[in-house]
Amino acid sequence: MSQTRSDDDVAPVVVGVDYGTLSGRAVVVRVSDGAELASAVHPYPHAVLERALPSGRLLPPDWALQVPSDYVEVLRIAVPAALAAAGVAPERVIGIGTDFTACTVLPVLADGTPLCELPEFADEPHAYVKLWKHHSAQAHADRINAAAHARREPWIARYGGKLSAEWALAKGLQLFEDGPQVYARAEHFIEAADWIVWQLTGTYVRNVGTAGYKAARQDGAYPSEDFLESVSPGFGGFVRDKIEQPVLEFGRRAGGLSAQAAGWTGLPEGIAVCVGNVDAHVTAPAAQALAPGQMVAIMGTSTCHVMNSDHLGEVPGMCGVVDGGIVTGLWGYEAGQSAVGDIFGWFVDSGVPASYRADADEQGVDLHRLLTELAAEQVVGEHGLIALDWNNGNRSVLVDHDLTGVLIGQSLQTRPEHIYRALLEATAFGTRTIIEAFEAAGVPVTELIVAGGLLKNELLMQIYADVTRRPLGVIGSEQGPALGSAIHAAVAAGAYPDVRSAAASMGRVRRAAYQPDEGRAKAYDELFAEYTRLHDYFGRGGNDVMHRLQAIRREALAR
Amino acid sequence: MSQTRSDDDVAPVVVGVDYGTLSGRAVVVRVSDGAELASAVHPYPHAVLERALPSGRLLPPDWALQVPSDYVEVLRIAVPAALAAAGVAPERVIGIGTDFTACTVLPVLADGTPLCELPEFADEPHAYVKLWKHHSAQAHADRINAAAHARREPWIARYGGKLSAEWALAKGLQLFEDGPQVYARAEHFIEAADWIVWQLTGTYVRNVGTAGYKAARQDGAYPSEDFLESVSPGFGGFVRDKIEQPVLEFGRRAGGLSAQAAGWTGLPEGIAVCVGNVDAHVTAPAAQALAPGQMVAIMGTSTCHVMNSDHLGEVPGMCGVVDGGIVTGLWGYEAGQSAVGDIFGWFVDSGVPASYRADADEQGVDLHRLLTELAAEQVVGEHGLIALDWNNGNRSVLVDHDLTGVLIGQSLQTRPEHIYRALLEATAFGTRTIIEAFEAAGVPVTELIVAGGLLKNELLMQIYADVTRRPLGVIGSEQGPALGSAIHAAVAAGAYPDVRSAAASMGRVRRAAYQPDEGRAKAYDELFAEYTRLHDYFGRGGNDVMHRLQAIRREALAR
Repeated sequence: MSQTRSDDDVAPVVVGVDYGTLSGRAVVVRVSDGAELASAVHPYPHAVLERALPSGRLLPPDWALQVPSDYVEVLRIAVPAALAAAGVAPERVIGIGTDFTACTVLPVLADGTPLCELPEFADEPHAYVKLWKHHSAQAHADRINAAAHARREPWIARYGGKLSAEWALAKGLQLFEDGPQVYARAEHFIEAADWIVWQLTGTYVRNVGTAGYKAARQDGAYPSEDFLESVSPGFGGFVRDKIEQPVLEFGRRAGGLSAQAAGWTGLPEGIAVCVGNVDAHVTAPAAQALAPGQMVAIMGTSTCHVMNSDHLGEVPGMCGVVDGGIVTGLWGYEAGQSAVGDIFGWFVDSGVPASYRADADEQGVDLHRLLTELAAEQVVGEHGLIALDWNNGNRSVLVDHDLTGVLIGQSLQTRPEHIYRALLEATAFGTRTIIEAFEAAGVPVTELIVAGGLLKNELLMQIYADVTRRPLGVIGSEQGPALGSAIHAAVAAGAYPDVRSAAASMGRVRRAAYQPDEGRAKAYDELFAEYTRLHDYFGRGGNDVMHRLQAIRREALAR
Repeated sequence: MSQTRSDDDVAPVVVGVDYGTLSGRAVVVRVSDGAELASAVHPYPHAVLERALPSGRLLPPDWALQVPSDYVEVLRIAVPAALAAAGVAPERVIGIGTDFTACTVLPVLADGTPLCELPEFADEPHAYVKLWKHHSAQAHADRINAAAHARREPWIARYGGKLSAEWALAKGLQLFEDGPQVYARAEHFIEAADWIVWQLTGTYVRNVGTAGYKAARQDGAYPSEDFLESVSPGFGGFVRDKIEQPVLEFGRRAGGLSAQAAGWTGLPEGIAVCVGNVDAHVTAPAAQALAPGQMVAIMGTSTCHVMNSDHLGEVPGMCGVVDGGIVTGLWGYEAGQSAVGDIFGWFVDSGVPASYRADADEQGVDLHRLLTELAAEQVVGEHGLIALDWNNGNRSVLVDHDLTGVLIGQSLQTRPEHIYRALLEATAFGTRTIIEAFEAAGVPVTELIVAGGLLKNELLMQIYADVTRRPLGVIGSEQGPALGSAIHAAVAAGAYPDVRSAAASMGRVRRAAYQPDEGRAKAYDELFAEYTRLHDYFGRGGNDVMHRLQAIRREALAR
């Protein structure tokens, strides 16, 4: 994408690089006003390894790996491409910042070499990057959580009562127990967010966000050696030996661009490289949503909610709260819904008949658009349906991956556009449930700001405003994380004194783009009460049918 | 359809005429062995009036009317056509029998003239036939039921505790209150099953079945004048003035074929015309399923269950029990599921994507067949789903038309063939629920015999055998009701001493065509336990969400 160029051809710019699940995106941003001059995307050559290693060795179910050299390729290809597209001379670039999926972790040597690049480990799955959605460490997470509650570890409440199987402790324990040779050889077990900064600077520093959200660092300390040893004998040294490292606040300069990285990117050696960050969190300054109570929902296949507060509350079922976890000086909260766009996509792919496909083709729109238009014609409650948005489990507030979807109220007159709207609404009810959990814990949520691909669906946005009864803003950028990384880069380069002031100049948001309609909001209150009753019945032990069906299913498939 | 002709060209035959919802079907049947020599179908020219009268006058929602002259056309067209197709000389026909949908009722003059045929009533909806599925008398039924319970009327327990809005008392009360001029003019309020016999013979007699099942006649008496007066002042004379008439057992000769009807049909004047009957009930002798404990499930868009027993039990939620209601000398029970094939059809029409349609087209099969084949590859429980079969409400055992469908257990991997199988199973669980209600009330069910269009689906049949853990037989005729009417005609003509012996010679069944598999039956026990828990939660007041959603829906649509 290319935006109109400023006539100021010497103004300083920064580069933001967003590392997503399947590709990396570089964007060139003007420091003075955040104008996005151009961007370039490079897909990871190995994408996600879910079935086999590059060697052909098969992987067990629920594994998801990546290849670290793919990340370096983004620096070599996407960064120069974005600069070229922007028509910007490299000497105008004063800094570079990055954000990454998390918790995405890899074992490396003391010099940062990934173990999977050693010939002896090329065929060893544990030596690769474990992507955030690598889901085979649930048993390890369960044991960590049980031990934390048994020992009344104070930090567990800061994670809604549960550490996720996706995070560094569970993945580290899995490596320790199931890949002992790799574990022994690893000199660091490092977040990819920090590893890529190390590649740019030659120096390994940790960022405060992944340390806190993913490795349970609270009040300056990780879980104790004692605790870890109690989980698995010999695991006590995990923090000291594998993850401890100086931690930097966001917006800090991690170092200067190394000669090697300058060679890869074409950028000037020595320019500021910002400390690493998480893709969702870095979106908050891009959306100018750093004040307490401004909840940012990054809505795509799933939704991640991030918000700052000056209160420290223990919100049940949230993903975590970290001091300075989003911006220095405030408590940063994270929560999430494990499937949002994925549910709409699943329905469109598997539940909409040929006649709709033909209508969509005739109108030259996709099925999402057609169904959205039909859904928009309905008044609230007309479809007679309630759905639960659990087709991929429930992250917040129930933290239960074995929960499944529900649809109630079908008649013989129920049409696909009725179900589609019920699914849109179900995800809005899920967000309202999260908001209410925050407020009940004394953490006010005053405003909702949406980023991510789903903000293009205006009906969905209006439903969220109505269901949550809050003004809803939308980010003014299609590449929020990359813009957020660029904002951090500008701070690291000294162009702004802090992230707040940089966000004020460089971020972009259409504030209160959608206002709740009181009539619809009232109608949704009734439906939300039904959602909540079903949510609690199926999700809090009223009827464990979903767990039993999943157990029956696994047993049936194992036969 | 034409079957191979017997070489016995002088053997006596009978004609059975089955009046369905959209057409009438005549079949010519050999008396000696029940061979179906030929049949012919005539669609009703006016089909079902749901939007407007023939005059163009619009009808309110939930109305469903018919035009009685359409029924006579079946006699004039389908009967001679069937005879011609069979190559049978009319003089070989010794009797004719009929069956009809019920409760399908109309107001007529003392000579049988339908009021809608009077010029002054041609534009009056209440003057037409109210078809069984005319559903706008629910409020009337509710009041009748409330009064019956308040007065502890003994007959109400014989209807599972509730008379249906489809039946004669509710429809009669609606006519009395909402169509007073028509009510005043009506000299009989008559079942179409009896009206068509009257057209054939010139004599009005009632059949024991519709009198019992649809007009609450028990132990020789209808609900009392006192009771009816208490429901609505002035309605006390309903039985005496509008529905009382001599009642005949099944298989009895109602009269001889009149000269007029002989002219219509081409059959010999004076041959035996059998008393009227109900389409579902008359199927039992056609399937040789008259012994106590043999439950016949007539499975089509909905399912009707009929069964004889020597016990009188008060089964909660059944439709009714009538002495001699299916065959003289036994208690005849009826129960039902309000949608079965309709649910499968709804799903295939509205929930299966274009790619499946393309696959089906390529294989030259319909979507039902394709989905059935894919569903047959799954082991029990593999789909992880439970559905409730309530997309059109629940007839037995909950008797609640405002209940709606449920699907639980969807993941992002759920495919249409998973949902399809879950829907097939849900209807089997519904039948098992009915069977268990009978058994709990001391009325044993030993065998299941299926008639109707769905028996062609072998997977569905095997699922029913497994879920109910009972041997499952299938009727050997594709036109069970018409064959059943022919059997009754043979009895009325004196060719057999009673219906039992006629059924033994003329009926056809493949007994125990499907045997339950103990392994699958055990697996289904687990899923049925989940079904039952959800059935009771949503259907017996644990969570009235369905009623509330329906109320919200109606309110939304009324806005």
